[in-house]
Amino acid sequence: MKQFKKLASNKELLNELKKFRDQKWDSVRKNAGWANFILDGKYSKTFYGIYLIETYHYVKENPKHQALVAIKGNNLPPNYSKFCYEHAEEETGHELMALHDLGSLNFQTEEVISMKPLSETEQLISYLYYISENGNPLRRLGYSFWAEDSYQYIQDLLASISTNLDLSKENMTFLVSHSSIDEKHSAEVEEVITKFCKSSEDFEDILEVMNTTIDLQSNMLSAIVREYDACINKKSEKYGSFYSI
Amino acid sequence: MKQFKKLASNKELLNELKKFRDQKWDSVRKNAGWANFILDGKYSKTFYGIYLIETYHYVKENPKHQALVAIKGNNLPPNYSKFCYEHAEEETGHELMALHDLGSLNFQTEEVISMKPLSETEQLISYLYYISENGNPLRRLGYSFWAEDSYQYIQDLLASISTNLDLSKENMTFLVSHSSIDEKHSAEVEEVITKFCKSSEDFEDILEVMNTTIDLQSNMLSAIVREYDACINKKSEKYGSFYSI
Amino acid sequence: MKQFKKLASNKELLNELKKFRDQKWDSVRKNAGWANFILDGKYSKTFYGIYLIETYHYVKENPKHQALVAIKGNNLPPNYSKFCYEHAEEETGHELMALHDLGSLNFQTEEVISMKPLSETEQLISYLYYISENGNPLRRLGYSFWAEDSYQYIQDLLASISTNLDLSKENMTFLVSHSSIDEKHSAEVEEVITKFCKSSEDFEDILEVMNTTIDLQSNMLSAIVREYDACINKKSEKYGSFYSI
Amino acid sequence: MKQFKKLASNKELLNELKKFRDQKWDSVRKNAGWANFILDGKYSKTFYGIYLIETYHYVKENPKHQALVAIKGNNLPPNYSKFCYEHAEEETGHELMALHDLGSLNFQTEEVISMKPLSETEQLISYLYYISENGNPLRRLGYSFWAEDSYQYIQDLLASISTNLDLSKENMTFLVSHSSIDEKHSAEVEEVITKFCKSSEDFEDILEVMNTTIDLQSNMLSAIVREYDACINKKSEKYGSFYSI
Repeated sequence: MKQFKKLASNKELLNELKKFRDQKWDSVRKNAGWANFILDGKYSKTFYGIYLIETYHYVKENPKHQALVAIKGNNLPPNYSKFCYEHAEEETGHELMALHDLGSLNFQTEEVISMKPLSETEQLISYLYYISENGNPLRRLGYSFWAEDSYQYIQDLLASISTNLDLSKENMTFLVSHSSIDEKHSAEVEEVITKFCKSSEDFEDILEVMNTTIDLQSNMLSAIVREYDACINKKSEKYGSFYSI
Repeated sequence: MKQFKKLASNKELLNELKKFRDQKWDSVRKNAGWANFILDGKYSKTFYGIYLIETYHYVKENPKHQALVAIKGNNLPPNYSKFCYEHAEEETGHELMALHDLGSLNFQTEEVISMKPLSETEQLISYLYYISENGNPLRRLGYSFWAEDSYQYIQDLLASISTNLDLSKENMTFLVSHSSIDEKHSAEVEEVITKFCKSSEDFEDILEVMNTTIDLQSNMLSAIVREYDACINKKSEKYGSFYSI
Repeated sequence: MKQFKKLASNKELLNELKKFRDQKWDSVRKNAGWANFILDGKYSKTFYGIYLIETYHYVKENPKHQALVAIKGNNLPPNYSKFCYEHAEEETGHELMALHDLGSLNFQTEEVISMKPLSETEQLISYLYYISENGNPLRRLGYSFWAEDSYQYIQDLLASISTNLDLSKENMTFLVSHSSIDEKHSAEVEEVITKFCKSSEDFEDILEVMNTTIDLQSNMLSAIVREYDACINKKSEKYGSFYSI
Repeated sequence: MKQFKKLASNKELLNELKKFRDQKWDSVRKNAGWANFILDGKYSKTFYGIYLIETYHYVKENPKHQALVAIKGNNLPPNYSKFCYEHAEEETGHELMALHDLGSLNFQTEEVISMKPLSETEQLISYLYYISENGNPLRRLGYSFWAEDSYQYIQDLLASISTNLDLSKENMTFLVSHSSIDEKHSAEVEEVITKFCKSSEDFEDILEVMNTTIDLQSNMLSAIVREYDACINKKSEKYGSFYSI
């Protein structure tokens, strides 16, 4: 079913897109076990460590598929290509914040770098590469649209983790610092969507990527909870070495 | 949790892998709504048409990511590279069987070719490209291992579709002919797994891809049921034009 | 033969690299017929038009292979990746200056976009893609090292073209404006080379790409002269339509 | 200048293409120093070793860019895709013959594998990748057209090398065995050209790739002579270790 009216202005369509984002997060927060798991607070730093490791894996790919949009797109408006490269530059090295936080909690970061990501994390990475290299070159904006502006939806979860695990700012540079860096990006992403979308069809494509990547990220978080459970029940070889912390 | 014993022979490990495949299919058949939907038989040819369209989309990528395994892998055994290219050759054009079946039922095949696949279909395609180009170059065998040998698990479903929709062989070349073509492939895939795996770790990687791609295909089938429902409730613009058939 | 001393500082090695650049340009200027052809001035605007068309073709690829360095490199220093993306952004759209200059001289720019580049132009493009995606990720700097700082070597040629064809600044935005834009890049490229090279081996790789891409560009210029000759002798179908101008 | 008549049959065009191939080889044989260098016979096994090493480097890429034609092409005829994959399979591992010959002459093959190719060899590889992934998907046939059928043009050179260096069949498996293997390929390539070309334009594109890749291979051979000279004059660090043999 088409979600957007055909004759609306881009400003109206952007507002619609924001409503869809609110609805999607509402639905994910209600249905996904991981959100309640976090609020319940029955976990150790190992859970947060596993989260940071999987985050490291997918975040380090972000600049790469962002730049691929400009490389693979045909006849893109130069300013959209410039946005892609500039955004890729700005996203470069963000995975190091996740590594830093791991290190600040005494996890062995060298070990982390050589680990394989969980299948769910690879599914998120795979999809982001594919939609960046194929189809409507604007549609990756559906990922940026929520990823750069997620703080409002997860503020309570961050507070809960911080309190439950007695974390300092030093342990949460990825999650906290990242949100402030992303405010600028968030405004840029909205501007770029408004500027380069030519039709409600573009908004449909952006919406599909927004919904799919929120789901895939949510699946990743469910897998992290599952892996953490296996870990404390000593059934996870992958994360076995993290149990003692 | 590691699934395979470290010191088993490849033959034993292959047998284990077959058991895991049985278990996975059992679980999918029990839990996925689409299997019961098919057995219940409350659908028109439009449902089968939508299935064939999504199948067309992912099947035409199969030879491409198969060959990419040999292109992207470093220092592969030449005979494994040869298997990849040969298998790519054999898979070429299989999507035309899906198109043929659509045409035999009077669907407009030109329209099909220009349609976008469903997000769930793209997720399957994305993951297959990613695992073909990254990580253990043997792991794509986990996809071939079930895709070339699925007839045994879905025979009752094929029979049900055929009976319910009164289909002839002419309308089912993809599903029926495909199963016999794949017998040869299936034996080859088992041989290749046995020959090139060097460790239980290789089997772990193959198992992960097997389980993930069965899940992604199952998600695709659920999405097809969802889309068919939207279609007959006139809520699907995408498949609106297929309703009248 | 290795060209660089093993125990020199990066500053010394950079100075050596500059000397090799001077020598390479000297040699190219002496041996390549195209430079004398330009100074002799026996050509019409058609020659300049053909130059701009081939330039359009290779310049539009520059940001793409520049960004690919960061995408394909493993474990690059984040600041080198950032340089690649930033440089890609800055190079985006420079081909439009070549198109603009063509338009200002009443060439049909739409026709230009759909033309195929000459084989020699494709050889330059091919090599730049390949070395950006394979081997030492620093070596593409050997291209930037001369391409961003070529004004000093071709100033007399630009003056000759301008005088011979009675061109205004408006007709030469690519060649003239481009040189001033590139001053900033040139300083950055030197800084990046000094900062990220770890050994004389890195300088050898950069030198090889510098020499090879100067040669490939020189071959492209020879091919443009050849094509112009064919054109005025009415033996070029490709550029036949440009003859009347 | 267009080389082919517009209204000729594919059979006529193929015959024209063969004439252009004869002319190109004639011209290369007359003008390139490397051919006379070989006939003069003033070289040691080191020269042949360097040739085999550079050959190893480019030959191992052949199946990869061959398969990429089918992967990157849009809407190719399935039988052309099948040809690409089948041909990729058949070309797989041919570089091992070059390694074998090196080993039979007591060169250290492990060292060879880790060496970098010469710039001229990389230029050949680069161009083949680029034309396989971009532009007319038929044009790579211009490379196969001469590479699979070069024996007739170099028979005297092979004989000269064999006599001068007193080589056995065991030392020349790449050059000798390769020519007989390629007879089958050569017939297939002609069939494929005749079958899939739709216009004289296709033949123009094939001709351009044929001429360019013969030139690039010829440049590679000149570079091998240059490198051999540096080697015996002890000016080549790269091939210094091969001098003693």
